[in-house]
Amino acid sequence: MALHAEVEKQQAPQSTPMDRLVDLLRPELAEVERLLAERAASPVATIPDLSAYLIAAGGKRLRPVLTLASARAVGGKGSDAVNKLATAVEFIHTATLLHDDVVDDSDLRRGKAAAKNVWGASASILVGDFLFARSFTLMTETRDLRILDILSRASCVIAEGEVRQLAALGKADLPISEYMAIVEAKTAALFEAAARAGAYTATNDDATADAMGEYGRRLGRAFQIVDDLLDYGGLTSVIGKSVGDDFREGKLTLPVIYAREAGNAEDRKFWDRAMGARDQHEGDLAHAIHLIRASGAAERTLDTARAESAAARAALARTGHGDFHDELAELADQTVTRAF
Amino acid sequence: MALHAEVEKQQAPQSTPMDRLVDLLRPELAEVERLLAERAASPVATIPDLSAYLIAAGGKRLRPVLTLASARAVGGKGSDAVNKLATAVEFIHTATLLHDDVVDDSDLRRGKAAAKNVWGASASILVGDFLFARSFTLMTETRDLRILDILSRASCVIAEGEVRQLAALGKADLPISEYMAIVEAKTAALFEAAARAGAYTATNDDATADAMGEYGRRLGRAFQIVDDLLDYGGLTSVIGKSVGDDFREGKLTLPVIYAREAGNAEDRKFWDRAMGARDQHEGDLAHAIHLIRASGAAERTLDTARAESAAARAALARTGHGDFHDELAELADQTVTRAF
Repeated sequence: MALHAEVEKQQAPQSTPMDRLVDLLRPELAEVERLLAERAASPVATIPDLSAYLIAAGGKRLRPVLTLASARAVGGKGSDAVNKLATAVEFIHTATLLHDDVVDDSDLRRGKAAAKNVWGASASILVGDFLFARSFTLMTETRDLRILDILSRASCVIAEGEVRQLAALGKADLPISEYMAIVEAKTAALFEAAARAGAYTATNDDATADAMGEYGRRLGRAFQIVDDLLDYGGLTSVIGKSVGDDFREGKLTLPVIYAREAGNAEDRKFWDRAMGARDQHEGDLAHAIHLIRASGAAERTLDTARAESAAARAALARTGHGDFHDELAELADQTVTRAF
Repeated sequence: MALHAEVEKQQAPQSTPMDRLVDLLRPELAEVERLLAERAASPVATIPDLSAYLIAAGGKRLRPVLTLASARAVGGKGSDAVNKLATAVEFIHTATLLHDDVVDDSDLRRGKAAAKNVWGASASILVGDFLFARSFTLMTETRDLRILDILSRASCVIAEGEVRQLAALGKADLPISEYMAIVEAKTAALFEAAARAGAYTATNDDATADAMGEYGRRLGRAFQIVDDLLDYGGLTSVIGKSVGDDFREGKLTLPVIYAREAGNAEDRKFWDRAMGARDQHEGDLAHAIHLIRASGAAERTLDTARAESAAARAALARTGHGDFHDELAELADQTVTRAF
């Protein structure tokens, strides 16, 4: 007992709020893992094979954790419905990834070859459709029409955001409002839906569910903005293999929009060539990263994320004082600090 | 009045059961058309543009008609719920077409360039996702969990069937059971769901809804089998532009399976080369059509469809005697006779 406490004390400073949430939610997350495997089953072997490739590959299970923690934060004690909801949310996310890889023509996902490079684009499209349909079967099993309402609307918004992003590709410049609309749709909408619907599995109070949804939405915005900065190595890191996807695809994100704004005529010519015309040469990515850091765009991007993170904390405070509040508040901070 | 009756008498022999159903359901179908346009709306212009290209292009609205008529056939009087359901079913069908065109790499759809050739494959994938999500929003608005249960399961089966069909591509031979499983999934499942869910908007009797579902399922099987024969010109028609898609894509369907079964060694060599290896030359399609007709495979295919059509009629009879029974029974016949 004493030894156990000692070990915990030693480990505590290193563990992140996400680690602690995963630990606190261990039984629920185990059930979600079981459901993810069970509901991806099909006599057509490609479906479980391709699903397992992506789902078993891990990922952080951030969305299921958010769903489960949101229910607990408003007084929930865990339920069959919230586990199914968390599984459905992860299926929607996985379906989106499968279709994204085809749309973006990305060759890597979570450090492995994209599923479309192993099974082909057609299988990725159709298995994505299957997982999306399965998510609605799971939600129907909760018998809660609010859940279906929230998640079906969010799914519309996600697809809308993806089309919006597609239309923005190859533009030399993008208004910040348009960038934020894309972030809102492609990331924040599902975070918001997961948190709001999660809360509804444990409370009937609309104000509480709305506040929890706002927490999820702000967390999602902070998360995506920081992700977009990490694609240029964050604040300080050296250039590794895992950076530069957005640059290569000509996807205009906040660090570039800010760097372009702060740059001179020559810098703008660089951005126009490299991102607008996608005429890219050796050393361009390093130069882009240099411009983003030297112009203060990286710090400014992080400030924008910090404001979202603070708004997430404020919304969380409006949901009262249930379990997991400290962890969820710290999760909002961690979303930003991982960029250092 | 007398003149009106006279005109009706004159027209009656030419009008098909589908024409008569469309006429009888005119107000409901007008509302469905309105909903199709209203719910495909989005601030992201590609979405309504691409949707309208496919939806306004018409199509036969066979699935909405089946949904609406199934409700009336079991005593329904028309309702907001059934109109939304019929719209949702057409959205699911449209989403499937959009993804199919990308998966099959088809260049034509309903006699026009496929949407993917106009807007690109990425837009077709994402707008398909949007319409699929919208269909679940519409179904959620009916507040009827049975509808969501039936249609979400059917959507899983459809995607499963598409993956199954993908895995069967390029095979030299296909067991009839595997062909029927594909037909069941990619066509019959949505027909069945439309009819069963349609019935549930008007009755709580499970036996009646099941019988209506069985009518839809058998109608769907007959419909797809005849479609597959029509892709080789049906029983007698000359070769036009609209035939040969399955042949070119190497999609093994019942006419070919039967022709292969009835053929000699030389014939089988032809099928192996043209469909298995997809090594196709000038005149191959004409030869395929010749083999299908001369071997009796065309007639045998039609017999199989006739059996399904008869089963549809038998199931319909189990639903009692509501409106539209004559038209639905004749629709089952028409599904087959259009092959002549």
